[in-house]
Amino acid sequence: MTPIIRTLILFVGLTLAATVVGFQVYADQPAEATASAEVTYELVYGEGQDTTAGEQTYGTVEEFMASAEYVKFMIDNLWILIAAFLVLLMHLGFATVESGLTQAKNSVNVIYKNVFILTIGILSYAFIGFQIMYPGDFNGFAGFGGFGIGFDASDPVGMLTPAYGEEMTIWADFIFQAMFAATAATIVSGCVTGRVKLPAFMIFGTLLVAISYPITGSWLWGGGWLDELGFYDFAGSTLVHGVGGAAGLACVILLGARKGKYEDGKINTIPGHSIPLATIGVFLLWIGWFGFNGGSVLSADPAEVSFVFVTTALAACAGALASMVTTQFVMKSLDASMALNGILAGLVGVTAGADVVTPMSAVVIGMFAGVLVVLAIVFFDRMKIDDPVGAISVHGVCGIWGTLAVGIFVPEFSVITQLIGTVSILLFTFLFSLALFGLIKATMGVRVSDQVETDGLDVSEHGSSAYPYFAGIDIIRSTSEKP
Amino acid sequence: MTPIIRTLILFVGLTLAATVVGFQVYADQPAEATASAEVTYELVYGEGQDTTAGEQTYGTVEEFMASAEYVKFMIDNLWILIAAFLVLLMHLGFATVESGLTQAKNSVNVIYKNVFILTIGILSYAFIGFQIMYPGDFNGFAGFGGFGIGFDASDPVGMLTPAYGEEMTIWADFIFQAMFAATAATIVSGCVTGRVKLPAFMIFGTLLVAISYPITGSWLWGGGWLDELGFYDFAGSTLVHGVGGAAGLACVILLGARKGKYEDGKINTIPGHSIPLATIGVFLLWIGWFGFNGGSVLSADPAEVSFVFVTTALAACAGALASMVTTQFVMKSLDASMALNGILAGLVGVTAGADVVTPMSAVVIGMFAGVLVVLAIVFFDRMKIDDPVGAISVHGVCGIWGTLAVGIFVPEFSVITQLIGTVSILLFTFLFSLALFGLIKATMGVRVSDQVETDGLDVSEHGSSAYPYFAGIDIIRSTSEKP
Amino acid sequence: MTPIIRTLILFVGLTLAATVVGFQVYADQPAEATASAEVTYELVYGEGQDTTAGEQTYGTVEEFMASAEYVKFMIDNLWILIAAFLVLLMHLGFATVESGLTQAKNSVNVIYKNVFILTIGILSYAFIGFQIMYPGDFNGFAGFGGFGIGFDASDPVGMLTPAYGEEMTIWADFIFQAMFAATAATIVSGCVTGRVKLPAFMIFGTLLVAISYPITGSWLWGGGWLDELGFYDFAGSTLVHGVGGAAGLACVILLGARKGKYEDGKINTIPGHSIPLATIGVFLLWIGWFGFNGGSVLSADPAEVSFVFVTTALAACAGALASMVTTQFVMKSLDASMALNGILAGLVGVTAGADVVTPMSAVVIGMFAGVLVVLAIVFFDRMKIDDPVGAISVHGVCGIWGTLAVGIFVPEFSVITQLIGTVSILLFTFLFSLALFGLIKATMGVRVSDQVETDGLDVSEHGSSAYPYFAGIDIIRSTSEKP
Repeated sequence: MTPIIRTLILFVGLTLAATVVGFQVYADQPAEATASAEVTYELVYGEGQDTTAGEQTYGTVEEFMASAEYVKFMIDNLWILIAAFLVLLMHLGFATVESGLTQAKNSVNVIYKNVFILTIGILSYAFIGFQIMYPGDFNGFAGFGGFGIGFDASDPVGMLTPAYGEEMTIWADFIFQAMFAATAATIVSGCVTGRVKLPAFMIFGTLLVAISYPITGSWLWGGGWLDELGFYDFAGSTLVHGVGGAAGLACVILLGARKGKYEDGKINTIPGHSIPLATIGVFLLWIGWFGFNGGSVLSADPAEVSFVFVTTALAACAGALASMVTTQFVMKSLDASMALNGILAGLVGVTAGADVVTPMSAVVIGMFAGVLVVLAIVFFDRMKIDDPVGAISVHGVCGIWGTLAVGIFVPEFSVITQLIGTVSILLFTFLFSLALFGLIKATMGVRVSDQVETDGLDVSEHGSSAYPYFAGIDIIRSTSEKP
Repeated sequence: MTPIIRTLILFVGLTLAATVVGFQVYADQPAEATASAEVTYELVYGEGQDTTAGEQTYGTVEEFMASAEYVKFMIDNLWILIAAFLVLLMHLGFATVESGLTQAKNSVNVIYKNVFILTIGILSYAFIGFQIMYPGDFNGFAGFGGFGIGFDASDPVGMLTPAYGEEMTIWADFIFQAMFAATAATIVSGCVTGRVKLPAFMIFGTLLVAISYPITGSWLWGGGWLDELGFYDFAGSTLVHGVGGAAGLACVILLGARKGKYEDGKINTIPGHSIPLATIGVFLLWIGWFGFNGGSVLSADPAEVSFVFVTTALAACAGALASMVTTQFVMKSLDASMALNGILAGLVGVTAGADVVTPMSAVVIGMFAGVLVVLAIVFFDRMKIDDPVGAISVHGVCGIWGTLAVGIFVPEFSVITQLIGTVSILLFTFLFSLALFGLIKATMGVRVSDQVETDGLDVSEHGSSAYPYFAGIDIIRSTSEKP
Repeated sequence: MTPIIRTLILFVGLTLAATVVGFQVYADQPAEATASAEVTYELVYGEGQDTTAGEQTYGTVEEFMASAEYVKFMIDNLWILIAAFLVLLMHLGFATVESGLTQAKNSVNVIYKNVFILTIGILSYAFIGFQIMYPGDFNGFAGFGGFGIGFDASDPVGMLTPAYGEEMTIWADFIFQAMFAATAATIVSGCVTGRVKLPAFMIFGTLLVAISYPITGSWLWGGGWLDELGFYDFAGSTLVHGVGGAAGLACVILLGARKGKYEDGKINTIPGHSIPLATIGVFLLWIGWFGFNGGSVLSADPAEVSFVFVTTALAACAGALASMVTTQFVMKSLDASMALNGILAGLVGVTAGADVVTPMSAVVIGMFAGVLVVLAIVFFDRMKIDDPVGAISVHGVCGIWGTLAVGIFVPEFSVITQLIGTVSILLFTFLFSLALFGLIKATMGVRVSDQVETDGLDVSEHGSSAYPYFAGIDIIRSTSEKP
């Protein structure tokens, strides 16, 4: 394990150092910073509305705070911050659902991976990701606005008032986006669980979050070529979830299945170790999704945010029920983890169009997602694509479905354009992942030894067990065989 | 198990189909919908206040958004949405506390039931429940405003501005109420756990949420006869929690006790399988309760919402401590699950009067609830009413207490009126439940076989275990007896 | 166990009685209370800003509600309430992380202690703590404003409008502060776990929350001598976390190490019983910390609150990564619980200066905290200070570091003043704790018997197990030795 540790130290240390240096490139300003620079504030009521009711010039933040526009800005900004902590709640959801749906002997490893990717993800997003995703004027394919968060010290008033261009300060904008950033890599974490080498995942996940995700993100949300084409993905069915699924698929292909999963032509079920833990995860994901989708309104617009809450919830419910019914037909069982995956499928599905589909369409989109997720899980199993938590199906397949559904259910959008956007983003991600994870495989290897996999990654790699005081079923079996 | 599965598929499928059809009855409008219809907006500051400071006419949503009233509307609406996700957090609380307080062998079943009832509950509330509960002008006993959420496509401006009649859009109103709706049935899920047939619970729970709960709800919150009588139940000590307890009692009577619970005149304790899981549940319920009670202010009125937070928290604390002390006297033990139930008892107790009792009264109400819940649990056990998680005591008994307490502690309200309201709602619910669950019992049966119960519902009905990698204590015992 | 129970009943009963009496000393007023008293409202935009844009006189709450200032007040007040429920989420975080990081046989005891200290803490804070911490004009060292929350019945308008002196009603101010109060004692609960007598902890924890914590708190936040000196501790690196660590250290010194922790000159590792449970705890603490730090802005000021979110998150991330790297060097392992502690270390570290340090400094402060926490845990272990969950290191050591860091990283503050404040508060707390816990030790004893400790506090003291259906590893071992 020594070379692994050495690689790890080197990598994490370098990343941290780079982050620190990156921050120093620009001079951060504390919140109190006020300057006398003049700034123009365009009064915009509600994201996506054209009503520019006036123009106002402020010299200081205090002047802005004494204006009538200030109070609306407070609410919009506050909602984005609330949405940010809700998306952080989703990361706890990912950690618990991925841990719960895998074996007990790999629980610590799952959690370690998720803690790492979340924290390095936020830091690297502060370092380079944020300004790759939102580079300002750029060629539409890839740009870079500079290191750091991009607080312009020469215009602090602009950074903290609506002159920044959204209904929020630069800090609120950053923290909300940063919480999103690690999501894609966390999805991959679920796919590769149980047999991936820790440093291999760490390097791959970090570069996915820091480079690939913000590049494809810039194509739409950064105002790139897909935005100009008319592609629509409200909160990221493709840009976030699809990306995670595509990257996960590439990694699983290179990594291979867990030992004993596919033997003698049979598909063996390796059940998750704690359904209650997975349940906690799925409910937290649902709750956090109100921030994920609701915050993507980018304001506290009452009509839009409340509408998004309704479509999000209805799709989650329809997804769960449709998945329950489908599981009956396909698997002849009342499987709880499939019901839970159905909730997630509905949520992923509605994410692309949560603000533009009708509630009725949200139910239908969620239902289809709930059916699709079951069929996709069965399909990938038959293809011997071993995805322990079903993340490729939940996030990848339902992400694609949700993005296309916007073109199907909303007359203003074109299915063809939706297809172009989905394919181009997922293909880029898939090829990036194949190349990067392939390179790692060729150099340091991506898979643990058979012995480590059999013993479980917790004891082998982390030297500890998630539940050291409980007797495993295997120990029991050997014990009871003894007499 | 085949006929069970067939029934299930049929039922869920039909419900889903009905929901889809129901939605199509009315034309949903996306959030962007704006029309030129004129609408009158009465400026109401703070729910329950008479200060109507003016009248304003808006032609479009944009016109409203440019008005001074818009910002206050934004905050009120945002708070209702936050309260909605907090009530969803309570459903995770219910799933974990009910799962934690029952046996490990029935955990998956508990979770499956709760996922089902939450998702079907929200969908059926969108289909018919919301407009049964708030039918508009009606006879005061039962009414129906029509299928669907009731978005009036001919008046989109009215639906998205204060003309709707509350400080929120129709979407925010619906999603908050929908999150409440499944609560009553989730409480029943706890009472019947460990021996109920899954389809029997599914059918019962769905009809309770879709029909019985909104009918009794309409009597007060829908402006029915109890509202006119002067009955007061702020956030639902009786309307939500009492209803769950009364329905649970009816079901338990028809269902009978778990095997081995009452043997040879002795009352055996069947402990919950995970105190930490139950703890997570109770804390999440408490946190969510700030949305349950705080959101019931139906605005972000600073005085009222902050006051409700204080009474809610003080009652929870007093309930926990009183329950700890009472448990010492009655059970001679430091039982953690009773302390947790004490928190819930205090919360249920203060729910009816959280906005009208003094903080001092909130402490006293919580204390009594904490004492009551212990005595009630002991009482029902002596009556051989087997309620595995104590839900009848927590939600039923303390719900009644809380509703009556409004009459006792607040001079403006009458104990007699409170009694009339409580009895009529709970009696209706009890009889409805007795009839419906009786009918199910007579036709398809409500109880699993002895073998299924002994083996646990998880393995028997779901074909899987909640914790497949951990050794159960029973296995150990037989092992240690072997040599 | 009978004398223990008797002491307990007496203590809890008396405390409850005292609380009830205490409340009656002042007349509580329900939220609706309005009076005709005139009140002056100074328009303050944003805490810490000097912009007093005007003065306004209101006769009733309704008059205030019709004013332009009302809407801003609504948002500020709402954010404080949201922050309050987030801090309650932290208490669930504490319960789960402390339970997860200790042995399974003491889980129920940990949870019981935490439920008790949280609920008695809030009640006693309502009874006396709030008005010790904020006594009004006082000598700067210790004062008392009177029993109860301090709602002035002769000036209800003042209590519910900005005349109260903050951007919130008295109720919002109280509930936010009350949620903070129990934190310090909950930290102690983690330190003493596994061998402390329940009533000893109960008495100690209650008096710490009710008396010691608010006295030292008044020195700064109550406007006492440290406030006048220029000491700065934004959200409580020292005032809350340091206090918990110092009290915990005193208790552990008097209590001694767990049996078998230090034997024959060796330091034995006693691992936590559930890493997933600890993970849930740490993530919830992080999420709640956005309320802990963000709410400490005491308004919804968009610039400040969003800035605090960014510094808080960056420090947490840097703490986790630095702790991961340090653990490699020091412990040669990929320990997940140390990574989790690194998150907490970063959060504790940034708490003192979250609103005044730059994002770059927040990263550095978090990194150092992540290194420090690992070294401190190793150090205390070598000193035979047995702190099962590492709370003294996380909250005490990193709390000191964070407070001093304000003096190091922010030119406006002096390291010397920061040192004076930190030392005086922690010394007072340490001596108070030593004296009180020493007195308890001398009279009723603080430590359970060896037998109780070996069997675990759950079965011995509570008569129940946290996981009664799962086989423990010890049982297995003895079983497998038998044949």
